[in-house]
Amino acid sequence: MDTARADRHPDHRWPDWRDQRPEAPGPHLDHAAAGRSSRAVLRATSNHAQLEAQLGGYVAEEQARPVIEAGRAALAGLLGLPTDGLAFVENASAALGRLLMVWPLPDGAPIAMVPSEWGPNLEAFARHGFPTIELATDGAGRVDLASLETRLATAPPAVVHLTQVASHRGLVQPVAAAARLCRAAGVPLWVDAAQAVGHVDTATGADAIYGTSRKWLTGPRGVGMLGIAEPWWERLIVPTSALTPDGTPVVRMLEPGEAHVAGRVGLSVAVREHLDAGPADVRRRLTEVGRITRETLADLPGWQVVDAIDTPCAITALRPTAGQDLIATRGRLIHDHHIVTTVAGVGRAPREMTTPFLRISPHVDCSPADLADLRAALTIPTRAPR
Amino acid sequence: MDTARADRHPDHRWPDWRDQRPEAPGPHLDHAAAGRSSRAVLRATSNHAQLEAQLGGYVAEEQARPVIEAGRAALAGLLGLPTDGLAFVENASAALGRLLMVWPLPDGAPIAMVPSEWGPNLEAFARHGFPTIELATDGAGRVDLASLETRLATAPPAVVHLTQVASHRGLVQPVAAAARLCRAAGVPLWVDAAQAVGHVDTATGADAIYGTSRKWLTGPRGVGMLGIAEPWWERLIVPTSALTPDGTPVVRMLEPGEAHVAGRVGLSVAVREHLDAGPADVRRRLTEVGRITRETLADLPGWQVVDAIDTPCAITALRPTAGQDLIATRGRLIHDHHIVTTVAGVGRAPREMTTPFLRISPHVDCSPADLADLRAALTIPTRAPR
Repeated sequence: MDTARADRHPDHRWPDWRDQRPEAPGPHLDHAAAGRSSRAVLRATSNHAQLEAQLGGYVAEEQARPVIEAGRAALAGLLGLPTDGLAFVENASAALGRLLMVWPLPDGAPIAMVPSEWGPNLEAFARHGFPTIELATDGAGRVDLASLETRLATAPPAVVHLTQVASHRGLVQPVAAAARLCRAAGVPLWVDAAQAVGHVDTATGADAIYGTSRKWLTGPRGVGMLGIAEPWWERLIVPTSALTPDGTPVVRMLEPGEAHVAGRVGLSVAVREHLDAGPADVRRRLTEVGRITRETLADLPGWQVVDAIDTPCAITALRPTAGQDLIATRGRLIHDHHIVTTVAGVGRAPREMTTPFLRISPHVDCSPADLADLRAALTIPTRAPR
Repeated sequence: MDTARADRHPDHRWPDWRDQRPEAPGPHLDHAAAGRSSRAVLRATSNHAQLEAQLGGYVAEEQARPVIEAGRAALAGLLGLPTDGLAFVENASAALGRLLMVWPLPDGAPIAMVPSEWGPNLEAFARHGFPTIELATDGAGRVDLASLETRLATAPPAVVHLTQVASHRGLVQPVAAAARLCRAAGVPLWVDAAQAVGHVDTATGADAIYGTSRKWLTGPRGVGMLGIAEPWWERLIVPTSALTPDGTPVVRMLEPGEAHVAGRVGLSVAVREHLDAGPADVRRRLTEVGRITRETLADLPGWQVVDAIDTPCAITALRPTAGQDLIATRGRLIHDHHIVTTVAGVGRAPREMTTPFLRISPHVDCSPADLADLRAALTIPTRAPR
């Protein structure tokens, strides 16, 4: 099957990707919110829930262990970490909460980030009592590596935190290069990969990286992941429990005792499908999809494409320039055209955004027809000239 | 359908309860670990996941809102709370973690509990920096109400915490009576209802109560609930987020931003089934099942029933008296007899337990044949007399 698939022209694989999923009523251009799971992922998830009802939840979990552990190994590989460095958690926010609890950070030490940082992450830093400092960026909002190097040498923060792919617009941080600088300076780099895993290269050498199942990997909702690099394992301050089995790897102790295990099974299948599709090919295709989306919308009256045309990701932000109400526009797109998008409010990046954007985030199966439908639906009717 | 069901002799309903579930390979005597979901619950859960893949996760969630909100109202009713007092959370431990974060407790104030308290709860109290004090109990381990009243008057703790139904043995706390005393003294009562909801009466007047979907309610894994009584809503210290919609009730702000929403749909169906079955009838039946279980096993050589025979719940603990290895016994029950049970290690109640128990926890469908199978499987072979 793999051979047959590889023999086909790559462009033919993406319609297959769509065919593997339940039929959607229209273009799903909202993978940055939640992706569309394949029938195999849905089946594996519901089959596991069925098994739980037959055998009991914990007997079923034991039986699914090989599938889940294969998923763990595959996910860890995607994040560039050893298998024991990966914990399944509830979602990306829970992962950051765990990091802030267990990492050996001095009280009150600053966390360095860029102005485009995801709002709820800023809220979590504040809630845990950590001040933040802003790193210099280039015109596109990417961390400036020369400034970072200087900062690390002269006034090192406790940790550098980068959101690898932004939520509100097409913006990809140079995480691998930042990781090299941070590693050399002995400052840990944490990466929010909620929009990055399954989308861009996430094996970047970060010290901690976390993400979610439901977006670009198109796994189930209610499952996330937290990866921590091996040099940190013994330094984490992990709460112990008498109920934890002896010999449990330290990072795995960060997993909740009770969880959506059927979702972990589904995610494991989703990761295998991602590897079968070829992560590098998926990345190239998502970059292409982003470029085509921006090209299609670039000259659309009443809308401004926020991102640079060649931003290497599939997220595009549109700024309304004719006073359109975005909430109403999103609703109209869904109800009248079955086109799914998201309104990104300023709370998503409160240090950078001043007005909301309409976010377009297709996956590899995006077709020219989808984008033509979107363009037509976004076109503002003009009065006929007299 | 309800009329036809009510016309039948109550004893006939419990085989129906079993028929509504996928067939199990043998007696499932482990509902205190995870219950067996009905086919309707499994179908609702997997149908929602399918809808997510078709419409997008958030469009599907919006569409499921009436089902989920009906489930919220029904669950709140079971807990004796207004609908806005209920939050869906990941699991019972997450609920307690939220309570310890948001409740207006003075730093270092003691939490009062009984020696049978669930070990991970004690670990959570310690992790959050709260000392504990032990309340006096009667011979069975129930809080002594006269001593509690004196304690509340003379040296009131910051909060009284009771686990309504213990995990490790048949033990039910007099929560309604304790709630009246606490209310009169102005001391909040928190109730861990992980083993109680769907099992005993949980509308007891507690100030906070939390539990899980997967046990006696037989809903999906990965979903829990936290209920808080209205007088406390305005006093909670709830972190705010710019992404929270205006007008969100304060308790609902304790819900995670990203969740196993399909599981909430499944839980909502499970709660409706519980209400259809009649919560009072289910409670009576579970008390009966517990008594019959203990009677069946009372004179079994090599085993001692730990609980009083008429303990009003369906959990039974067995202490081995002939040196049996419980882990091996549990494994043998599953593999040789398809009988599912749990080994309750001392970490579950570290202030009370000194040796592990074998825990038996049937649901309403438990039959005399199930218990005869269990008794036979637990019988220690004796040598024939010479």
